[in-house]
Amino acid sequence: MTSIGSLVGTRRRDAMAAWSAMLQDEITTLFEGLDGGRFTEATWDRQGGGGGRSRLLTEGDVFEKAGVNRALVEGILPAEAAARLGGNIPAGTTPHFFATGVSVVVHPRSPMVPTTHLNVRYFELTDADGTRLDAWYGGGTDLTPMHPFADDARHFHRVLKARSDAHDPRLYPAYKAWCDEYFRSPHRANEARGVGGVFFDHLRPSEPPFGLSTDGLHAYVTEMGRVLGEAYAPIVRRRRATPYTGRDIALQLHRRARYVEFNLLHDRGTLFGLQTGARTESVLMSMPPMAAWAPAEAATPGSIEAALDAMLVPRDWASEA
Amino acid sequence: MTSIGSLVGTRRRDAMAAWSAMLQDEITTLFEGLDGGRFTEATWDRQGGGGGRSRLLTEGDVFEKAGVNRALVEGILPAEAAARLGGNIPAGTTPHFFATGVSVVVHPRSPMVPTTHLNVRYFELTDADGTRLDAWYGGGTDLTPMHPFADDARHFHRVLKARSDAHDPRLYPAYKAWCDEYFRSPHRANEARGVGGVFFDHLRPSEPPFGLSTDGLHAYVTEMGRVLGEAYAPIVRRRRATPYTGRDIALQLHRRARYVEFNLLHDRGTLFGLQTGARTESVLMSMPPMAAWAPAEAATPGSIEAALDAMLVPRDWASEA
Repeated sequence: MTSIGSLVGTRRRDAMAAWSAMLQDEITTLFEGLDGGRFTEATWDRQGGGGGRSRLLTEGDVFEKAGVNRALVEGILPAEAAARLGGNIPAGTTPHFFATGVSVVVHPRSPMVPTTHLNVRYFELTDADGTRLDAWYGGGTDLTPMHPFADDARHFHRVLKARSDAHDPRLYPAYKAWCDEYFRSPHRANEARGVGGVFFDHLRPSEPPFGLSTDGLHAYVTEMGRVLGEAYAPIVRRRRATPYTGRDIALQLHRRARYVEFNLLHDRGTLFGLQTGARTESVLMSMPPMAAWAPAEAATPGSIEAALDAMLVPRDWASEA
Repeated sequence: MTSIGSLVGTRRRDAMAAWSAMLQDEITTLFEGLDGGRFTEATWDRQGGGGGRSRLLTEGDVFEKAGVNRALVEGILPAEAAARLGGNIPAGTTPHFFATGVSVVVHPRSPMVPTTHLNVRYFELTDADGTRLDAWYGGGTDLTPMHPFADDARHFHRVLKARSDAHDPRLYPAYKAWCDEYFRSPHRANEARGVGGVFFDHLRPSEPPFGLSTDGLHAYVTEMGRVLGEAYAPIVRRRRATPYTGRDIALQLHRRARYVEFNLLHDRGTLFGLQTGARTESVLMSMPPMAAWAPAEAATPGSIEAALDAMLVPRDWASEA
């Protein structure tokens, strides 16, 4: 896959739509290589404008469920979605929106292999006349371990930091902190969904952060979209054959229940998708194949449960030796 | 358990708190009798005012999980909770709220035994000076089959209708329709959570519906709170020993996933509890012990899956022969 390069002379929304198609293919190929299985594809149309192409791999050797979805949706922005979206929406206006991007969620079969999620999206808001009100990139990727392998968190974050630092050393610390802030459950005493990663939103090509150029911002966002091959695939390869027990599965099912709670109660992308009429099966591909709600009990000190709980407290993984 | 009878000379909130304690005991006894197991109890205090007494039975012979919770909470009403609550809240005021009641959710082990939920609550809103702004009853009960036994839906509704008609024949049709309207998932093409029951909210002692007296409204609400012994227990008894297959369990796990989605995305009680700082473990006792999200596929005509889907279309169960 080649970079789009300069967007001079190209509408950014068209360029991002084309790039999303390439990214979807690249990640599909990556996961099929890791798993050995094949994705099936479903296309859908959105009433009101746009649609998507969803790819799902189930019952694979490595991935019990993996989704690599692409969407391009546009239309009138529902008021309840506008309230969560952010962006410059003048009072009293009913903006039109355009959004395109790729969303990835995998639920590995083995509790030794962590879950990951990745999303890259490009948004535009226009008024009824088509005048642009706002435009921005959003996205990120995070890791959710089901077993307390600190080395995996360190690897994931080291790659994100190295790939971010090449653009600007201020990017990783800012977006790592944003990720920690975002992927936590207020209803569970702010417990983190996992060990984080990077998360960013409202990064405007018209005013790129940290003095990046507009092309530099595009290069950063698209590089983050392609990072799983280096950040996640090596973790899958080194954990896929690790033996596990029924207790490990119980812990996995518990963490997956917390994943469900976060996504349905708090995840802005999930709620935005459901509110704007995207295909429900595609939005909820993030749901795990199975999850369990067991009665709450305090983890025994020194146990794997306690060790995993401890990993959910945000820390500077990338700097650990 | 005796009725409270006339509330003349008694503060309604105190009477409902006392009645809730009696109801919790009555339902606890009912379920322990059906199951043979015992509930464990946890009490909790709410930062800001009030608390609760939660009872949980897990790994029983009949109930994989059953919760019978009582709460009495009060304090300043958070703005996001006020927006969902309804009631007369004058613009610009920050009301105080008082709420007490009982919530019941059971998740039977066998897919042949349906899930039920019941809730009765009493709400008051006051201004900062303690002047009452509004007061109302809410509640209801509904049935969620995991297997297509139409007879169970008919029994449940016939009992609700008979018990309601004794108060006024307009109650059951109105609150049956309200239940169908409430327990459906907009993100799943308005699929019902189950076969419904009765649901009501904002029933004001100061202006009882359908010309009931204030005492008559109280009598109706409290009778609905006590209805499970007649409406639900006979279903448990006749289905508990029915054999089932792995396919039945798969269907149960699928329906439970939809139950999770409804409760976390749409249920006002769940969101109110989480937003007002009730104990999370108690609010989320409604989560099933296990749930599964399988890839969507159309049910084969004539299958149990198709028959159960068909039962989720609201109909007049009580009048069927």
